[in-house]
Amino acid sequence: MSEVSAKDITLSLLREARDTVRSSPLGVINTPMIPWCQTTLQLSVNCNIHIKLENMQRTGSFKIRGVANQFARRPKGGHLVTMSAGNYGKSFAYASKHYGSKGKVVMPETAPASRSILIQNFGVEVERVPTSCLMNVVNHCVREENMTFLHSYDDLDLIAGHASLGMEVLEVVSEPDVVVVCCGGGGLLAGVAAAIKLSGCDKTRIYGVEPEGACTMHRSFIEKKPVGMDTKSIASGLAPPFAGALPYELCHRYVEGIALVSDEEIKAAVTALYKSGLVVEPSGSATFAAIVNGKIPDLEGKNIVCILSGGNIGKDELADLG
Amino acid sequence: MSEVSAKDITLSLLREARDTVRSSPLGVINTPMIPWCQTTLQLSVNCNIHIKLENMQRTGSFKIRGVANQFARRPKGGHLVTMSAGNYGKSFAYASKHYGSKGKVVMPETAPASRSILIQNFGVEVERVPTSCLMNVVNHCVREENMTFLHSYDDLDLIAGHASLGMEVLEVVSEPDVVVVCCGGGGLLAGVAAAIKLSGCDKTRIYGVEPEGACTMHRSFIEKKPVGMDTKSIASGLAPPFAGALPYELCHRYVEGIALVSDEEIKAAVTALYKSGLVVEPSGSATFAAIVNGKIPDLEGKNIVCILSGGNIGKDELADLG
Repeated sequence: MSEVSAKDITLSLLREARDTVRSSPLGVINTPMIPWCQTTLQLSVNCNIHIKLENMQRTGSFKIRGVANQFARRPKGGHLVTMSAGNYGKSFAYASKHYGSKGKVVMPETAPASRSILIQNFGVEVERVPTSCLMNVVNHCVREENMTFLHSYDDLDLIAGHASLGMEVLEVVSEPDVVVVCCGGGGLLAGVAAAIKLSGCDKTRIYGVEPEGACTMHRSFIEKKPVGMDTKSIASGLAPPFAGALPYELCHRYVEGIALVSDEEIKAAVTALYKSGLVVEPSGSATFAAIVNGKIPDLEGKNIVCILSGGNIGKDELADLG
Repeated sequence: MSEVSAKDITLSLLREARDTVRSSPLGVINTPMIPWCQTTLQLSVNCNIHIKLENMQRTGSFKIRGVANQFARRPKGGHLVTMSAGNYGKSFAYASKHYGSKGKVVMPETAPASRSILIQNFGVEVERVPTSCLMNVVNHCVREENMTFLHSYDDLDLIAGHASLGMEVLEVVSEPDVVVVCCGGGGLLAGVAAAIKLSGCDKTRIYGVEPEGACTMHRSFIEKKPVGMDTKSIASGLAPPFAGALPYELCHRYVEGIALVSDEEIKAAVTALYKSGLVVEPSGSATFAAIVNGKIPDLEGKNIVCILSGGNIGKDELADLG
């Protein structure tokens, strides 16, 4: 990623990516944004919350946006490889099948077997390896087998595709006071923040949300460079071991701050959203957890957008959350 | 109910009820209506489906609409009684607490204990009796204990309150080709159908959906009078033993036909909606089941509204559905 920097992300590039995502043959959905009305959940502040239902997105998460742009901007065919145990892998497999590309997903051996099966059902190869070997196996695939590596969060095309979510937000709420986005590697947060700031919303405050046990971007902000850590969280999609380099650079530029939530707060948010009629996975519920637990400052009277980034959680997994 | 007839349901009465529901202190939600975009579920016809998210309604179902109108139109206080094992009981209890009324719910002893607890937590008394005794116990409460009976589907004020849902549909889609509504006792179907037809949508076709094992309105249409049957369905909210008299009269006048769905089709619809990010109970999913299984005629190229009437289903219950 060394050849690109935050300056390469321009408004015209993001507009082009949005058009690419919109017209993608993968059928990316302009997901609904609806008011949050269930006041059974008492907030300590009086504010106006819009929730963006990315849990209703094709493949069940926002990842298809970035994947749609990645696939559109590369030559058809070839042999692609990535590493993911989750939503990126699902979107990658969905796109590989659609585009007729050969694909391979290198997955930590700790991932649920159901994830392997789901991805294999799209005709994509899965190799399960110890977490510490993930990158080595990917490097081997690239060097020895001539595969092309698609990165799941640290990639210009991916981030530009994710930015389409930010553009859609502004089509409904033209100048939100606060936008709250989850942060794993930082690709979504970086894309949405860039889209909103480059569109001229100078006063909009954009916050990332990370689990306490997987706060790589938070630490990167403190150390003023992208850093890694041993991560542990129920929100597996928010727990990659490193903050992405390009995401860090963009977040540093456009994001107001990172809020941290506990796994207990995330679980309670999943349950609250479930009771309100929405299936949202732990990673997708972290933003909501941050808002209801007062982790985002100065919300009184404000227009707030809360991104619910994904809904990939099995019924059994949900019941086990308690 | 003998003193009222379908003619008493006029557009001005429904407009008044809508205003009452909207301004109700119970906080009834004008629920979102969103496009159905998840084409992973292949439909055999090409049509435009809007889903009305009544699963996101306060108390988890449309019942709060009718209850809001019932409570607003009677003197405060007093001692109220109803019979319900489900969504009506929950809304009734919620309203009783809010209005400071004494309330009692007579419930079939087969209902889950969790339902009793939920209703008792609103400060409302629960009496569990054999199903065959429900009406006798209610009658006793009215005669001997001077309670006022609120009916859960066969009541003018209730139906007029439910009609607010039909009014809201027309605010988003001004003249839908087809509207699909679930049918238990028939209160929601009657209210929505009356609202749409009386608003001048002469060409809109309105369909009710019943489970095969609880098709009292379907049989009432055949016998040209409201009839009962022994009902059995996974969609307990759609399985009262009788079609309501006033609902029958209104449905006979305004509804195009009744579609029947199997419990298996309902279960599959619950799962499909879950995978698309929505928590919808079996009773609320029956409409969707009817559409995707081709039970509603002539949908090609049409603008269709599908009401998802409720989302009250526990995580365990959902996992057990398979």
